[in-house]
Amino acid sequence: AIAELLAQQFDTGQLSGKHVVITAGPTREALDPVRYISNHSSGKMGFALAQAAAEAGARVTLISGPVNLPTPPQCERIDVISADDMLQAAEHATSDCDVFIAAAAVADYRPANIAEQKIKKSGEHITLTLTKNPDIVATIAGQPTPPFCVGFAAETQHLGEHAQCKLQRKRLDMIVANDVSQPGIGFNSDDNAVSVFWPGGKQQLAQASKQQLARQLIQLMAERLSATQPQAN
Amino acid sequence: AIAELLAQQFDTGQLSGKHVVITAGPTREALDPVRYISNHSSGKMGFALAQAAAEAGARVTLISGPVNLPTPPQCERIDVISADDMLQAAEHATSDCDVFIAAAAVADYRPANIAEQKIKKSGEHITLTLTKNPDIVATIAGQPTPPFCVGFAAETQHLGEHAQCKLQRKRLDMIVANDVSQPGIGFNSDDNAVSVFWPGGKQQLAQASKQQLARQLIQLMAERLSATQPQAN
Repeated sequence: AIAELLAQQFDTGQLSGKHVVITAGPTREALDPVRYISNHSSGKMGFALAQAAAEAGARVTLISGPVNLPTPPQCERIDVISADDMLQAAEHATSDCDVFIAAAAVADYRPANIAEQKIKKSGEHITLTLTKNPDIVATIAGQPTPPFCVGFAAETQHLGEHAQCKLQRKRLDMIVANDVSQPGIGFNSDDNAVSVFWPGGKQQLAQASKQQLARQLIQLMAERLSATQPQAN
Repeated sequence: AIAELLAQQFDTGQLSGKHVVITAGPTREALDPVRYISNHSSGKMGFALAQAAAEAGARVTLISGPVNLPTPPQCERIDVISADDMLQAAEHATSDCDVFIAAAAVADYRPANIAEQKIKKSGEHITLTLTKNPDIVATIAGQPTPPFCVGFAAETQHLGEHAQCKLQRKRLDMIVANDVSQPGIGFNSDDNAVSVFWPGGKQQLAQASKQQLARQLIQLMAERLSATQPQAN
């Protein structure tokens, strides 16, 4: 009940009437019936954003890879495993959405072939061919009438350059960059610190809990959304 | 308290004075600072065996890969990530042990090189070279004076043949085989059904909860251990 009261304090209504679609967590790419490639994303940042967007009055669809997190109140959750599944769910959910936030750590590559039976241990070395996965946020941002698209960039070096390059190349409206090589923030941490870039602007958000950062990010997105939208008056 | 009373019912003392080392869960093999290869092992079977061994009076060392499970009462737990870490922990813990149970789903292969920086998305395809991981149970069973060694075989086809071949090749005292392609048992399930093989014998254990199966397996191991040990009378 205290959590609800606190949440109501942040209930700004900035996104009321808006449909926000958020992806969160890792994806898992099967190698065979038992093995997979994945990454260390906990889903905490995406889930915090879903909660903050709901607090701001949005209708929220949360598309989540395999994580161990409870669904935030008021959010519709769709569970997926692979990047292909996540793209399909995102394409469907964004057909009528205003803001698309791609917070998931989607696997860049998947095994070119999924073995039907468990691969037996054999030689000293094996070679695996990986195929590039679809770029979910770029696919959604490349639609004829895309929603306001927010990407994430988890980097271990050249943070700003990589992030701004992705912003332009993928035609995003905003990108949130964090340095996953820094201990105490990012993957699996409760805290984060990010740099936010949009066409013609940027802002640093200092280290804070993912829940606090999520509220700041949702506020920033709501401001940019209203700045970029044609006013209907 | 009820759980404790129930547990005491099964406190058979069959392994009192014995040191049992158990590996459990998956291992994770890093590709770069954020990506890894792993498998769907939940660690439930290994943790159930640790609890059953403690109930049977053993001193238990539980070496666990990354799982979301509480440590069973009375067990010493050592957390590891990769197969190399797990081997090192197992070699150390088994220096004075009587029974070694290798229930972990150790990754057979690991990336030949771990990239220091996050691998950037580039071409349509990338090729990954994987190197064979050490075989932990075979390494322990190959020591000059090995403990009673129990292996596990998770198979999707030719269950009995594969398991008996592993029993001989790795010089194990017992192997527990289960068909991970069957829905409702095995990886991530609460139930399991297994076939147990030892030199000159075998036994099927019908589908049951992992906790019930663990107790049956610990009893079988205690029987085989006393049958194979030179009697000190």
